[in-house]
Amino acid sequence: MEHELKEFIKKCDEAIKQENFDTLMKYYTEDAILVVKPGRVARGREEIKKAFIAIAKYFNNSLVPTQGEMIILEAGDTALVISQTLLDAEKKDSEFSMDRRATYVFKKNTQGNWLCAIDNSYGTDLINS
Amino acid sequence: MEHELKEFIKKCDEAIKQENFDTLMKYYTEDAILVVKPGRVARGREEIKKAFIAIAKYFNNSLVPTQGEMIILEAGDTALVISQTLLDAEKKDSEFSMDRRATYVFKKNTQGNWLCAIDNSYGTDLINS
Repeated sequence: MEHELKEFIKKCDEAIKQENFDTLMKYYTEDAILVVKPGRVARGREEIKKAFIAIAKYFNNSLVPTQGEMIILEAGDTALVISQTLLDAEKKDSEFSMDRRATYVFKKNTQGNWLCAIDNSYGTDLINS
Repeated sequence: MEHELKEFIKKCDEAIKQENFDTLMKYYTEDAILVVKPGRVARGREEIKKAFIAIAKYFNNSLVPTQGEMIILEAGDTALVISQTLLDAEKKDSEFSMDRRATYVFKKNTQGNWLCAIDNSYGTDLINS
């Protein structure tokens, strides 16, 4: 059986593909953050939902994210996922990489469910030095 | 004033340099994990302390870690730090990079103090694809 976080990330990717952003927001903590692009962060579900709508539009409403190689580093109720995130879309001129080394932080809530707290698909590329 | 996590990481680096590993362990959560090297994880303070003693020995008891460019992504009581971690040591043949793009996850405890939960100095280099 796959790690539950791998299954969870698949559900997130499916919700993005289907543009089910209300469903997607249930997978984030209330005070989650999303790195929209280097230097720009969306904070909380409302801002993150708006950002995903804008991202979907940017990719001509054809964005399909999938994950390649993945490492899950779990420490109690907190996990860091290092993942190869592949973006496919009917847009050939994206100014952002479609093949990323992403870093995602998840927290387990009191019901034992994982939620995304920090969504940074740019990984360590946020620092250039 | 610098971000409190930047100050905190300086204290960790200082403890590593001084080999004050009992002090260093106070900066980790009880169920913290340390990526010792790709594929090998130390779990909990006791294992992490042993790993740091072995790391210190590997570097001829001369290891000095410092941080360069740093991005702090804070979401409530959880933070992901992306940092350029520079290692200096009197050892010229290390099989590991001395200039890393690290990923550290911190949690704020009920007293409002940050503690390290996931220490992965290898960042996204854990996946090679």
